[in-house]
Parts: sequence; structure tokens; C-alpha cells
Amino acid sequence: MKRMNPTESNYFMPAEWAKHERTYMSWPVQSSMCYPESYAEVCEEYYAELAAAIAEFEPVTIIVNAADESKVSERLGHLSNVSTLVIEHNDAWLRDNGPTFLLNDEGNLAGVNWRFNAWGGKYSPWDLDDAVAPQILKAAGVKQFDAPIVMEGGSIHSDGEGTLLTTEECLLNTNRNPELSREQIEQYVKQYLNVQQIVWLNHGLSGDETDGHVDNIACFAAPGKVIIQVCNDPADENYAITQENLERLRQAVDAKGRKLEIIQIEQPPKAYYEDQRLTLSYLNFYFVNGGIILPIFGGEAEETDRAAIEVLSRTFPNHRIRTINGMAIIREGGNVHCTTQQMPAGRK
Amino acid sequence: MKRMNPTESNYFMPAEWAKHERTYMSWPVQSSMCYPESYAEVCEEYYAELAAAIAEFEPVTIIVNAADESKVSERLGHLSNVSTLVIEHNDAWLRDNGPTFLLNDEGNLAGVNWRFNAWGGKYSPWDLDDAVAPQILKAAGVKQFDAPIVMEGGSIHSDGEGTLLTTEECLLNTNRNPELSREQIEQYVKQYLNVQQIVWLNHGLSGDETDGHVDNIACFAAPGKVIIQVCNDPADENYAITQENLERLRQAVDAKGRKLEIIQIEQPPKAYYEDQRLTLSYLNFYFVNGGIILPIFGGEAEETDRAAIEVLSRTFPNHRIRTINGMAIIREGGNVHCTTQQMPAGRK
Repeated sequence: MKRMNPTESNYFMPAEWAKHERTYMSWPVQSSMCYPESYAEVCEEYYAELAAAIAEFEPVTIIVNAADESKVSERLGHLSNVSTLVIEHNDAWLRDNGPTFLLNDEGNLAGVNWRFNAWGGKYSPWDLDDAVAPQILKAAGVKQFDAPIVMEGGSIHSDGEGTLLTTEECLLNTNRNPELSREQIEQYVKQYLNVQQIVWLNHGLSGDETDGHVDNIACFAAPGKVIIQVCNDPADENYAITQENLERLRQAVDAKGRKLEIIQIEQPPKAYYEDQRLTLSYLNFYFVNGGIILPIFGGEAEETDRAAIEVLSRTFPNHRIRTINGMAIIREGGNVHCTTQQMPAGRK
Repeated sequence: MKRMNPTESNYFMPAEWAKHERTYMSWPVQSSMCYPESYAEVCEEYYAELAAAIAEFEPVTIIVNAADESKVSERLGHLSNVSTLVIEHNDAWLRDNGPTFLLNDEGNLAGVNWRFNAWGGKYSPWDLDDAVAPQILKAAGVKQFDAPIVMEGGSIHSDGEGTLLTTEECLLNTNRNPELSREQIEQYVKQYLNVQQIVWLNHGLSGDETDGHVDNIACFAAPGKVIIQVCNDPADENYAITQENLERLRQAVDAKGRKLEIIQIEQPPKAYYEDQRLTLSYLNFYFVNGGIILPIFGGEAEETDRAAIEVLSRTFPNHRIRTINGMAIIREGGNVHCTTQQMPAGRK
């Protein structure tokens, strides 16, 4: 008997701003870090800070390796909103290897288990990370849909009303699903997220080793409204990328036939570490209940930091903008959105 | 020739929410700490965090001992909004030994240099701290008024329209100005701050070794509007204190003849460290340009943390509430307001 996919079962991917039951994160693993000597600092100044900041708004469950459980529980145990769940894992970017939670019209939860191959096979091993999503879904007691394609959560945004925002650079990359055509990938994405329209951007940020995850360049602010990080310096590689993506957004129509309102946030100034361009993005912010967790970067970026806060405050007058130091994690390659995964409020 | 006091010179103390030029803070001094073994932690998890949080809103100048300058500059040098100023000092509660800045009607700045005796002679030595305010005023290039009484900035709040909020427990304490009567103290306060009406509360928080600083219990939210931290547990020493202060606020009239609107914030749950009650207070928040820096406490206090954020968000819809971890400094006896001093925007 054929198993029904989410669309056939009437499940869909809600927008990130829909009310959360909780946020899931993973605790970092020293051996998989780009700069393992910074492990203690990254744990303390980023992951512990982020968990505490999110816990101001909603419960947090941290996926920990068994060896780290007592340490993490002790460090964050004073926060009743924070709990741990032991699942062995390789790395700590739960946006990408976690489940994508779904809801149906009766408010029941389910989750998609995508295949995960560490961003096109870039970081070995990834076998444990590929097995994390089913364990979270099992622990949460919600229905699981197994999608037969490689996909990371950081490469998609849903408006909750049938439209998906993504990039060609990532979703159509031959290091993800080389055996599938664009049409087949579109079909799977539509089936497993129950979307009717895909808004395709082209490239992501210059230097982004995820191959252009959309969660570093643009997201929905509401149905029919998109925020995009822009580059206004023609000498910067991101300039042409921005122009192309802006043009695509201007021509786009969503699943409800709406043209998109476009809100621009200026990118932070170019910055490098050991000759590698850092993928600084305000768009890697994360919605929590009643708030937004926003990475800011300080230093040369102070002016754009303030401008980003200002744009988000105006766009989301009912959200409290909670800043955190995005520099504390950026050398590892991601930021707030990459390290979180929302579970919407729903029935199990 | 008699030197004119601020009232005679038409200077007055603006409200804390009036636009700031900058915030001054002092960097901590290990030998004067209650728990010197926590020095590195307090520097990193509190003072550096606080400076960075304030710098999101306005410039910060950190008073440093010469021996610490290079360390602090290196730690915070990536933030262009943060600078250091070398002034030798004993301890790091600049609210209390810093100058009280004043403005006149033409927008010129001045500052009051109060006498400082370390909260009634509690912590020796305090000679360097008593000499900090004149050096700040000199470095800033603003006119100085020398007030002939002992007074700490944490014991007073101004509404900017002629009304002062303070407590009898502190201002009338015999360990401050034993040779002066209540009337004489009132007279000096009125002259040096140019206020016409003093709203006297009675006691401050139980366990507060400042002898009841008002900046742990109440402040103005606007002229005619006061926020007070309340205790609703009759078994807690703060219950009777709250009741008495609430009654005084209900009967008070300000300098403009207004009755006061009263906004209540529930206190965090009772907490102790080594048998000493910690003086946890949300009222120790600090106004910055466009924001509020709010200490929150986590753990048992999560529920009241959220309620305090909610009340302040409602009361100040145009301010961004920036939380910081108030537990990182609380064992030393104070919090955000105690460690900051605003310099209003004005001409020098």
C-alpha cells in the first residue's frame, strides 16, 4: 500500500512565526568544529547565551550527546524553560538536520524527515546527524513523513499559506540530489510541504558554504511580504547577487496570486577570517513567541546593526527584538537560524 | 563672593529618559569585590556584556584604572561606540560616586559633585571614588557644582519637571549626613537639583546594604507616572515595605500638582547567597536612547522576568527592552542602574 505524503494527508508547513511549542537546538561537538580550540568559548558565549535568550520567550530543548548531558544540564539547569534530550549527533546545526514540523487543519503535528548529507558531503561523518530527525519526532510522539530527497531546513522558508522561498544554488545543486531533475525536486518539495508555489531566488551569500541557503538572504515577514538583505556596494560580490534576487522578488507571485512587498536590510560590512569571507547576515534571525532573536556583529558593523534593529522593530512592532552576539559563532559558518528548529504548537 | 548653586544658575536634573550623549561606567577592581575570586567572570559576563548591550543604543565611556586600560581596550575595542577614560578608582558603582549631570534651559551641561563615603562608610577605602566625579566633569569639559552633602546617585530619581523620588531610609540615614536635619538635607537637595517637590518613600528593599536606595524599588516612567516593584507575599519582609511605599505614592502630589499614576511590577522570588538576601530588582533597569537595559534573573524568577518584560514593553512601546543576565553581578550587591551613569545630550 502506498504511504500518503503530507499534501495527501492535509498537513502543511506553518510559517516560522506561528506559535511555537518549543525550540530545539543541538549542543556543539568539539571534534566536528572548524576551530575546535574555541569549543569552550563557543559553548559559553554562543550556545548557552542563545538557549537563555530563547528561554525568555519559550521552552528550549537541547539535543545533547550522552557524554555532555550532565555538563549542559548543570550549566542551564537553573532555567526551567530549558531541557535536554539525549540523541547522539555529529554537529550542531539543527536547522539543517532537524525535522521540518507540519500541522494539519485540526492542529495535529507531524514532521518531515529529510535525507541529510552534510551540505553536499562537505563534512564527514554525517551518519548520526542524518538519524537525528526521526529520534526527535519519536521522542515528541508525532507522525513522521520520510521524504526521499536530500534537503536542509536552512534552504527553505514557508509563508504558511502555500508559498515557499528557496534558492536554485542550493536546491538544484548536484551535490544534493544529482539523480533528480528540477521538476522532480519541485514535485517532492510541494508534496512534502504542501506548497503550491515556489519563489526561486538564484544565489545565496558570497562565501556561504551551504551553497546559498535562503536563511542567510531572505525570509517572509508575513504572507505577501519578504525581507531581503541587500548589498549596495557594486565592488562586492553580493551586489550582483542582490540585484538578481531583488528582480526575481519583484516579478514573483505567491500561491494566493499576490505580488510581494519587499523590505530591505543592508548587509553588514565585508569581513574575513583567515582569508575566508564570513557569512554575516541579519536575515539569520529567528522568530520566537513574541520576539525575534537577532544576531548583531559590532565593530565595523555597528551602523548596519542599528539599521537592522530599526527595520525589524518597525516591521514587527509586537515582537521584542532580542539581540545576541553573532560574532561568537560566525567562524563556524552559521548563526541563530542555522542553530535552531521550531516546533509549532499543536496536538500530538 | 558666594558661588551660585544650580537652582540660582537655572540648571536642573533632567529625567533619565532624556536623550543621552553617552553612558559612563566604571571597570571593576578585584581587591574591592565581595567575591574577588569571581573577578574574571564578573568582568566578562557582566561588565563587558553590559557595555556591549548599552553600545547598541548609545556611546559608552568606561572609567578604568591605568593598570586595566589596555586589557579593557583590547576586550571592547571592536566596538566603536565604546571608549575608556583613565581615572583611578576603588570600586565600580558609578551611579553612586559619579556626577549627577544637569542641563539649563539653553541646553548647556553641568554636573553636581556630591560627597561620597561608600554608603555610610561601609567599604574602605573610598578616597579615590570620592574624587572620580570631578575628574569626569573636567574630562567632559562641563561646569562643576560642589554639593556640601554626602549623596549617591542611586538614592534619587528625577522626573525632569521639578519632582524628586527618594527614600527616608537612605537620605536621612545618620551614616550619611549626621550633622544635618531633614530640613537642611531637603534644602540642599532642592538647591543642587533644582527640584520643588520631594516624594519621600520610606524603606528600600530588604537586605539592600545601600540603606534603601530608591533605584531598587521605584522610578518615574514619565512625569506623573511611577513604576514600583511590589511584593505580594505577606510572609516576606518586602510586603510591609511595599504597602507603606504604595500608600505614600497614592497620597503624593508632584511639583506640578499632579497625583501619580502607579504601575506595579512584581518582585522576583526571594533568593539568598551565603545567608544574605540578594537584592533582586527589575527596577534597577536603565534607560538608554530608544531602549531599556533590564536585568532578569532566570531560574525561579522566570515567571516574574516575563511579567516585568511585559509591563515595561506596555509602558514603553517605543523602547526596545534589552535584557541582560542580572545574576552575573548580583552577589556584589547591585545591578544595571547601580553601574551606569547617564550624561544627557547638551552643549559643553
